Amino acid sequence: MQKQMGKQTLVFNNVFVKEGFSVAGPKEKHGLLGDCFDFCLDDDKFGEKSFEKAECKMFKFAIDGVLNKANLQPDQIETMLGGDLLNQIVSVSFAMRAYNSSFLGLYNACGTFAESLLVGSCLIDGGYKNNIVCISGSHFSTAERQYRYPLELGVLRSPVTQWTATGSGASILSKDKMGAICQITKGVAGRVVDLGIKDVNNMGAAMAPAACDTIVQFFNDTNEKIQNYDAVFTGDLGKLGKKILTDLLKDNDLCFEDKLFDCGAMLYKQEQQTFQGGSGAACSAIVFNSFILNKFKEKQYKKILLAGTGALLSPLTSFQGESVPCIAHCLEVCSCC
Amino acid sequence: MQKQMGKQTLVFNNVFVKEGFSVAGPKEKHGLLGDCFDFCLDDDKFGEKSFEKAECKMFKFAIDGVLNKANLQPDQIETMLGGDLLNQIVSVSFAMRAYNSSFLGLYNACGTFAESLLVGSCLIDGGYKNNIVCISGSHFSTAERQYRYPLELGVLRSPVTQWTATGSGASILSKDKMGAICQITKGVAGRVVDLGIKDVNNMGAAMAPAACDTIVQFFNDTNEKIQNYDAVFTGDLGKLGKKILTDLLKDNDLCFEDKLFDCGAMLYKQEQQTFQGGSGAACSAIVFNSFILNKFKEKQYKKILLAGTGALLSPLTSFQGESVPCIAHCLEVCSCC
Repeated sequence: MQKQMGKQTLVFNNVFVKEGFSVAGPKEKHGLLGDCFDFCLDDDKFGEKSFEKAECKMFKFAIDGVLNKANLQPDQIETMLGGDLLNQIVSVSFAMRAYNSSFLGLYNACGTFAESLLVGSCLIDGGYKNNIVCISGSHFSTAERQYRYPLELGVLRSPVTQWTATGSGASILSKDKMGAICQITKGVAGRVVDLGIKDVNNMGAAMAPAACDTIVQFFNDTNEKIQNYDAVFTGDLGKLGKKILTDLLKDNDLCFEDKLFDCGAMLYKQEQQTFQGGSGAACSAIVFNSFILNKFKEKQYKKILLAGTGALLSPLTSFQGESVPCIAHCLEVCSCC
Repeated sequence: MQKQMGKQTLVFNNVFVKEGFSVAGPKEKHGLLGDCFDFCLDDDKFGEKSFEKAECKMFKFAIDGVLNKANLQPDQIETMLGGDLLNQIVSVSFAMRAYNSSFLGLYNACGTFAESLLVGSCLIDGGYKNNIVCISGSHFSTAERQYRYPLELGVLRSPVTQWTATGSGASILSKDKMGAICQITKGVAGRVVDLGIKDVNNMGAAMAPAACDTIVQFFNDTNEKIQNYDAVFTGDLGKLGKKILTDLLKDNDLCFEDKLFDCGAMLYKQEQQTFQGGSGAACSAIVFNSFILNKFKEKQYKKILLAGTGALLSPLTSFQGESVPCIAHCLEVCSCC
């Protein structure tokens, strides 16, 4: 059976998305997709003593939620894989103490959810695992203090910034088609692209070239036509990044017009003052596991692309004057045939 | 073809280790394995302005080195996968700017190299990739200031501590058997084990139960006999951790006697005052890509196990009073049949 297409595209024949579950924070609840999420926090500390413990609890809540929705027991999940934005991906690692599944920690910043679907698809399609959980998430308040400033400082935000989404999204991938929502049929792991952007506020501008690179690679490898897709979602470029991507894609003779969506740009209302929209490892994870999977359930989508983007910097690299290397991993998701 | 064995063991039929390359720091050069490494730094800043930039340079040096040894061009490598100990795994991510291969960022602390071999083996054996690079590394001076104290402070070290190894190790995995050193035949992804150790100096005690859990899982799944193995290497438990593991294994009726080695415990001389020995994401990566591969080249090994261990904490989780969750991933490596 064919496993590779062109230079970088992987072909999957037996990877089914059994269920998805999304946990979202209070700001996301009051945003544009508030009605889509499985569970929303009213208190962004989730009853815990610290935001970090709340983030970890969201991971466990998403895993328990997706298992419950899929009517699976924890011991039916052989492996969980994913990551988060905290140093040493501690949210997901600490959440894993509650489960007996094996664990593979991943990190490609906000592209981690797409990375988990990609690696997970290889594990399922390759015949190595039967049921796995792919997960990622983030929390505005843990990210803010780790990457930027203490919340208490009330630092003014630049108009090009995005807002780290609070939430956690989990999907169950399975080799078993029965009752599946959709299937993952192709994937492209992205390469690291760095065009020299040093403005750490403007992640959309830094990530757009990486998204373009991976999407162009996919269409080159597959010779697919845009009209065969209902939508193309980018991970979280935000509004400005989406505009830049649109221009970059045009330079490569790709024009998605109103089929191009960005998970970050579609998360919040204008009056919520998130400027360019959402970002964070939660962003594409909660949009995929709510809005996108719902569209497949409602038979409104037959085939989409999800290109999760990540900015691979750290505060230390910025302090040392480095630019921002970025990456995007792309998945083709289809209704079950 | 069989892909799973027992509850957690994966079976690989076509994963060949084409070449390995090890870069080591000055202290490692003067240690017990100094003669084994491909390249040793005399200056642990490697001619760079910061230790972080030196760490990143070691990654590129290891990748270029292993490509050169295997007589492969960079564009023959489809994917590179791995990680390091710095926040947001920036050393490997920034090194990736120099290559066109796709990149999958991994993080399981000091178990990252074993994780990269495990995920990489699925990519090769599953038919998704033809040639990949698996890599991880660490630097004493970047780790020390990120996880512990500024070097300038000269803080006294606890006798149960290990010393973060400086170095980087890279392996090329290939579906092509021609000229291969050995092959990866089985793998077990570990689960997160936390027995409540809170002493962040005593990583060996924290990690030993995770190593035991994964090794026991492997022997339960495979019904293999110890006498069929030339050696069992743990990632970096250090001397004390190795003793604890020996006891834990005995409780599970597994006794390796003089076949049990620890990559951390075998790295330094007594007089180098590293106390329990080496640790860090470089540790098992440089031992595997020098000492272990050399033994296969010299036909002294036919079959070994490598169990890479990782402590999944962060400074923040310790400040918040958490214990140390740990993990171990295990690979069976055989001479080419």
